[in-house]
Amino acid sequence: MKGQLAKRMSRSKKSFIREILKVTKNRDVISFAGGLPNPDYFPIEPLRSAADHVFATQGRQALQYAPTLGYEPLRAFIAQRYAQKCGMNVSPDEILITNGSQQALDLVAKMLVDPGDHLLMESPSYLGGIQAFTMYEPEFQSVPLEEDGVDTAVLAEKASHPLSKLFYALPNFQNPSGVTYSAEKRATVNQILQENELFLIEDDPYRDLRFLGEDLPLIASYNRDRTFLLGSFSKIVAPGFRMGWICTPPDLMDKLIVVKQGTDLHSNFVSQLIIQQYLQDNDLDAHIATIRTAYRQQRETMVGMIEECFPPEITFTLPEGGMFLWVTLPPQVSAMALFEAAVQQNVAFVPGAPFHLDGSGDNTLRLSFSNASPENIEVGMARLAQAVKQIMVLGEK
Amino acid sequence: MKGQLAKRMSRSKKSFIREILKVTKNRDVISFAGGLPNPDYFPIEPLRSAADHVFATQGRQALQYAPTLGYEPLRAFIAQRYAQKCGMNVSPDEILITNGSQQALDLVAKMLVDPGDHLLMESPSYLGGIQAFTMYEPEFQSVPLEEDGVDTAVLAEKASHPLSKLFYALPNFQNPSGVTYSAEKRATVNQILQENELFLIEDDPYRDLRFLGEDLPLIASYNRDRTFLLGSFSKIVAPGFRMGWICTPPDLMDKLIVVKQGTDLHSNFVSQLIIQQYLQDNDLDAHIATIRTAYRQQRETMVGMIEECFPPEITFTLPEGGMFLWVTLPPQVSAMALFEAAVQQNVAFVPGAPFHLDGSGDNTLRLSFSNASPENIEVGMARLAQAVKQIMVLGEK
Repeated sequence: MKGQLAKRMSRSKKSFIREILKVTKNRDVISFAGGLPNPDYFPIEPLRSAADHVFATQGRQALQYAPTLGYEPLRAFIAQRYAQKCGMNVSPDEILITNGSQQALDLVAKMLVDPGDHLLMESPSYLGGIQAFTMYEPEFQSVPLEEDGVDTAVLAEKASHPLSKLFYALPNFQNPSGVTYSAEKRATVNQILQENELFLIEDDPYRDLRFLGEDLPLIASYNRDRTFLLGSFSKIVAPGFRMGWICTPPDLMDKLIVVKQGTDLHSNFVSQLIIQQYLQDNDLDAHIATIRTAYRQQRETMVGMIEECFPPEITFTLPEGGMFLWVTLPPQVSAMALFEAAVQQNVAFVPGAPFHLDGSGDNTLRLSFSNASPENIEVGMARLAQAVKQIMVLGEK
Repeated sequence: MKGQLAKRMSRSKKSFIREILKVTKNRDVISFAGGLPNPDYFPIEPLRSAADHVFATQGRQALQYAPTLGYEPLRAFIAQRYAQKCGMNVSPDEILITNGSQQALDLVAKMLVDPGDHLLMESPSYLGGIQAFTMYEPEFQSVPLEEDGVDTAVLAEKASHPLSKLFYALPNFQNPSGVTYSAEKRATVNQILQENELFLIEDDPYRDLRFLGEDLPLIASYNRDRTFLLGSFSKIVAPGFRMGWICTPPDLMDKLIVVKQGTDLHSNFVSQLIIQQYLQDNDLDAHIATIRTAYRQQRETMVGMIEECFPPEITFTLPEGGMFLWVTLPPQVSAMALFEAAVQQNVAFVPGAPFHLDGSGDNTLRLSFSNASPENIEVGMARLAQAVKQIMVLGEK
């Protein structure tokens, strides 16, 4: 209609998390809300050297228009890492460089989703995924997340529906729950999807951040047909570059590249060269080990504080990696009410309801342990425990 | 349908230009095909210093997640420049930083276009625009481009159609034609759009590259209701950063920011800080003057060669700025056949048909004069004249 926005806009809303982050900008607030990497571990000086080298030796190339797929040596690095770490045989031409994983979600949805298609998601699921997909007007189908991954019985049932198109999964240290799929569930999920000809988006930004247990195979490693495997430098180098990628077989890449061309021609090329130079000159695994050690300590401090200060009827996940931990309050206690009490105590988190598409999750919340020192985690969690006690007394009235 | 791509994918195809660019990668080919800025004028050393300063002093901020709108000092610079150069009163919060203008086209179409909406475009028009918009399944309506801008009679007629939603215009040194709208037509276009409640995308990446004549008011400067004004650093700093922007009033920005959030959270923040530092430390207008002088000389060399070597029945535009010049062959001569003859002579351009949505333009072609030295332009145009003579003799048989 004249003067009106597209119909898809009626379903979209501002990111709840980004609105919450505004509330927590007060310097006195200790925030476990945002999913921010700890900037103490940004490799600033090595990146500075890498940037200087790129401008000094490849300035004309770095600053010009560039191939849509991305910088070949960077794509080769990513492909080789899949071979080394996951035993997967991936060609550099099966890698497309994107503006972070978030753009990858948009591009794949644009390529796959017609209005009304069933899009299967874990419940809870990543808010940015919900936001990206909403613009393509799917019918969301929630599949409950259990301790060892998605409920495969429900997945199998929903996947068999004729309108089912796509399953979106975060099998490693999921955002928001911190849950990791077992090896058995990974294999089963792949089998269900292959049998039902569903596409898979396997969103995997946290895999390198495992600090407990052993690496498990990617779902896509069982059979790559109809899979889009997403990765990112945001958590292992830095998010400010907005640098992620999609790994998909040649038949799908051939179409995906058309979508990327029309969307923004190609990703920031200067930054691709800088990151590649950084990776060439530095030991990424040594750097990741530093981050892992720090996050492990932060996670342990947070878990210790919950065990020490929270009422025992409050349950929580024990993530083996990543950045998030998921808390479940007693059924009658609202995390939104707790949020308000917590902000009064100068501590913040994200209430769990927006991560659910089925209206559930009112008594859940996400805590990020990645972007606070152990000292701040102790102080912040003590404050949160105060707010919990306050709200639970109120809730029991 | 299961295992099938979204329906919108059936309408999209690979960029014709990008396919052509592959043909012209041979080192012996002199290419007037790609719309590439001349890398001789990339400010490599000043950008190197700016990058070094950013990493040294703002590394933690530059590398972290950032606001969706973009870096405030960069947005303030852009807003202030609209005030200085165009007499427009724009707040920094009316500027959204995008991954180049190409992403701006995608974001605005996503926000506005329902399938079947009439999207009015100049004929010929920018290929990247066609590619971006196609994904939202509009009905394209071509409005012929005349020497002084779009045909306003046809525009008024098409704008009055009840399904008309949006007009896409490049009023300054249009890509591909090099045409610039007269001041009268700019005012008339704004009036037609306002009367019919149409949205406007005013795509303006070349305005600073005027080397003849005087600056004219932006269409959006008459009345900003329902306007999206697009700008870019690609042509005045460097395209490798993929850094552009959208200027739109607060009511539309409020919605646009939701679209940007879902699409990729925010643009590359490191690069925003580097460009802002570069702009703060250097005289952008002096830099632009250097580019203008060079492009003017390149354009004059190209025009001189056409006048000297081409048959008089071939007509061409005389752009007052930008990067492109548009050639019209006699009606029976195919630019695609000329392209094949030209590649044999080791010179390349882009045939005009793909820039048209109405099947016309077979006898037209685009020449880019921005990315070749005057010496190479002389050699390349002499080769092209050979191909023209060859094909026109053939065509007359």
